[in-house]
Amino acid sequence: MPPVQLADKYDIIFIGGGSGGSGGARRAASYGKKVAIVESTPHYGGTCVNVGCIPKKLMWHAADLADRLRHTAGYKFQDLGQPKFDWTTFKLQRDAYIQKLRGIYKTNWNKEGIVLINGHATILSPTEVQISNPGEEPYTVKTDHICVAVGGYPTIPSDKDVPGASLGISSDGFFELEHQPKRAVVVGAGYIAVELAGVLNTLGTETHLLIRGETVLRTFDPTVQEVLTPWMEHTGVKLHRQTKVTKVKGGPGSYTVYTDSGETIETDVVLWAIGRQANTKSLGLEDIGVKTTPKGDIVVDEYQNSSVPGITSIGDVTGKWLLTPVAIAAGRRLANRLFGPPSFTGDKLIYENIATVVFSHPPVGTVGLTEPEARKKYGDAVKVYKTSFKSLYFSMIEEHHKEPTTFKLIVEGPEERVVGIHIIGQGSDEIIQGFAVAVKMGARKVDLDNTVAIHPTSGEGKFTTTQTVLRVRLTISHSQNWSPFDDFLALA
Amino acid sequence: MPPVQLADKYDIIFIGGGSGGSGGARRAASYGKKVAIVESTPHYGGTCVNVGCIPKKLMWHAADLADRLRHTAGYKFQDLGQPKFDWTTFKLQRDAYIQKLRGIYKTNWNKEGIVLINGHATILSPTEVQISNPGEEPYTVKTDHICVAVGGYPTIPSDKDVPGASLGISSDGFFELEHQPKRAVVVGAGYIAVELAGVLNTLGTETHLLIRGETVLRTFDPTVQEVLTPWMEHTGVKLHRQTKVTKVKGGPGSYTVYTDSGETIETDVVLWAIGRQANTKSLGLEDIGVKTTPKGDIVVDEYQNSSVPGITSIGDVTGKWLLTPVAIAAGRRLANRLFGPPSFTGDKLIYENIATVVFSHPPVGTVGLTEPEARKKYGDAVKVYKTSFKSLYFSMIEEHHKEPTTFKLIVEGPEERVVGIHIIGQGSDEIIQGFAVAVKMGARKVDLDNTVAIHPTSGEGKFTTTQTVLRVRLTISHSQNWSPFDDFLALA
Repeated sequence: MPPVQLADKYDIIFIGGGSGGSGGARRAASYGKKVAIVESTPHYGGTCVNVGCIPKKLMWHAADLADRLRHTAGYKFQDLGQPKFDWTTFKLQRDAYIQKLRGIYKTNWNKEGIVLINGHATILSPTEVQISNPGEEPYTVKTDHICVAVGGYPTIPSDKDVPGASLGISSDGFFELEHQPKRAVVVGAGYIAVELAGVLNTLGTETHLLIRGETVLRTFDPTVQEVLTPWMEHTGVKLHRQTKVTKVKGGPGSYTVYTDSGETIETDVVLWAIGRQANTKSLGLEDIGVKTTPKGDIVVDEYQNSSVPGITSIGDVTGKWLLTPVAIAAGRRLANRLFGPPSFTGDKLIYENIATVVFSHPPVGTVGLTEPEARKKYGDAVKVYKTSFKSLYFSMIEEHHKEPTTFKLIVEGPEERVVGIHIIGQGSDEIIQGFAVAVKMGARKVDLDNTVAIHPTSGEGKFTTTQTVLRVRLTISHSQNWSPFDDFLALA
Repeated sequence: MPPVQLADKYDIIFIGGGSGGSGGARRAASYGKKVAIVESTPHYGGTCVNVGCIPKKLMWHAADLADRLRHTAGYKFQDLGQPKFDWTTFKLQRDAYIQKLRGIYKTNWNKEGIVLINGHATILSPTEVQISNPGEEPYTVKTDHICVAVGGYPTIPSDKDVPGASLGISSDGFFELEHQPKRAVVVGAGYIAVELAGVLNTLGTETHLLIRGETVLRTFDPTVQEVLTPWMEHTGVKLHRQTKVTKVKGGPGSYTVYTDSGETIETDVVLWAIGRQANTKSLGLEDIGVKTTPKGDIVVDEYQNSSVPGITSIGDVTGKWLLTPVAIAAGRRLANRLFGPPSFTGDKLIYENIATVVFSHPPVGTVGLTEPEARKKYGDAVKVYKTSFKSLYFSMIEEHHKEPTTFKLIVEGPEERVVGIHIIGQGSDEIIQGFAVAVKMGARKVDLDNTVAIHPTSGEGKFTTTQTVLRVRLTISHSQNWSPFDDFLALA
């Protein structure tokens, strides 16, 4: 049964009530348009709110606190023993918070005149969306525009490819875990694998991380890979390199993972974190000719147009930059372009120099090109500045717990325009944001130098081109990491 | 007795082996110059290393950890009880670390061929410095240039002005405290008062903060004052507004502080944090005509030249921006100008848009003009964007401990050029650095918006000019604070 307030026709229907759909719908509504969101679940807010950024960051905060507890001895607090985390209670509290966020989404859509249509959407034509709910008669809603913003879901191998693969869970299942596993096998080397393995390990789970190559975060700058991979091992993650899962056996709470190196690993949980895919099934895309990639992502142009006029798409389902702020921004720019003032007729999201953070321990912040990408694009015009040190915070903490910090700056051309910044270390998550603004503005190395008004040091000559002291360190580190002797050590 | 390796004549002598002197000396030495540093104490590294940034930040980290311990209940760790900080042991460890840093300074000067002359310097002429040590015959060292980098020291009122004032200690004395005071009276409203009162209070000392006005950090943006002042009270600091000390009585460990409002406060420690002054006594400045301000700071031009040719001055003793990186930068630029390649003949430090951080709880980050400064300079062309929220981290923590976060962006003109950013809240210390680069580069508001590719929201219209949602929040907060509902709440 359609909602009573259903309009005869909408200006735009967003299929999917996640970050992108919500962002776009609200912007469209702000222009006085008739807007509906179709959402098939009660999980308003999509991946980010329900099984992504929010619960992930909360778990990271918990893990980070566990790490801080390990630092209290160095800071001469009373003996607090090993951190004991009550996963079960925390999960309930986390869920309650997420439930609250879902409600805020719904309330605000309502407040802004956006109609929420619960049900599964099938696109019948560029102007017709069919809504179906189990046990109810489907009905059709008319609209001038359709924007597909259904997001994605985590990939799990088929049982045909990996017998027993379906005994494992995905990141979705991770957030459903009601008890902390004593042992976990995480499969994957991407940021989701790294983040979830990091949380589990830091909270005390015996954590195995199975990766196909030699390092984690293979799409990130090599320096990030080289710093994080051994550090994860140092902190206790049992890293299995060059390893693929061949088989999973067992039952609830007790599995055996078989690998192509002949290993068997006993575990409570098998967690697949090998990628995500677009959620386009049964949307009717193929019937009306909306092109998708072989992987299933919706193909869009720079204005978010699909191959069928009148149908646009934003967010994870387009397979580019699976990040909440990107989806929101794409949705808003799309609404600007379709419904905004004339100055917005060419509005679109520029998909470059978008800062991202990996909530590893310590976190990674990155913006722009990796070194290999930069060298491919600019060849010998590329210069790299890199520095590593231990931040002041860790000076009071026993050697074993001193986290690494590395900053890398990639510049090109005689002007030394910054094309990439890659940092790992405590605080990187916060540090990267403002630098992303500077990079987006076309910052040159001298702009970073000038900010603290520090010219390259005399010592720089002692380094090779790729090992020069990164002046930004002093910029950055006066607050977090700054200690004057860093500067000396860099020269040593 | 002069050091054996003493040269007949130096290219430059830096008086004072703190941040500025060291930075300048090392840069000068890198150009192959004969360089000496005269230092009258064994406290190489000056204020920053010995009684400033470094021990302060370490104490802040300890206090921050105490706060984190208070958050563990919310994150469902075992009951850890109240944090018990072993001040005495920590102080020994902190001192040992500082001792190590001093040694690194000395070693590195030595390595770079800089001669360290221990003793008190008196400037006899622009080319002669007399070195004296107790019980030894003074001797004279010749030089082409003299740079005064002697720093400053904390002000304590005279006993004539405030009877018993000398019973109190300064920030120098704070770092000498071997036991944590049970009660402390901190006098002052500047950043040093705020930081030390914050550390004491957070670590459990009953802390009274006596300020002359209504708010702390009077020279900072009003928003920072308005957010931090009540929050300090909320966290337990006993704030005495509009209050001056009239008298101090008592003896070691037990004092009575009398105020002009008729109050008396019993305390273990009286800590003056009312300002700092230049350390120019008995340098012989007046004899050779080096001009100082009525306050005692050495007057320098934009190239760090004093009123006497051949004598320059850098760092705290010049009374401008009492910050370590500023002193280092000024020293390096001076050395560049005097001894560097021709491209550096006009080199100087630009004293604007220098980012600063106050290590309060939560910290403050600021760059550029305050709102009053901006309005004075740009009048009605000024526009202010401001937003306040609670960061995601605190969503799991009981109400009482949820720290405030406020971001304020000050722009001017039709292009909305950013002239000031003022932020308070967890992570502000790290967040501000990169934004300072952007501000220094002349960022406009649209540059911040474009970085996450987010246009102003529809909701902005609902706010007054000074209450518009600051888009930078989404830029910043995806890592630290980001939660999609912030955006909704901002519209509520």
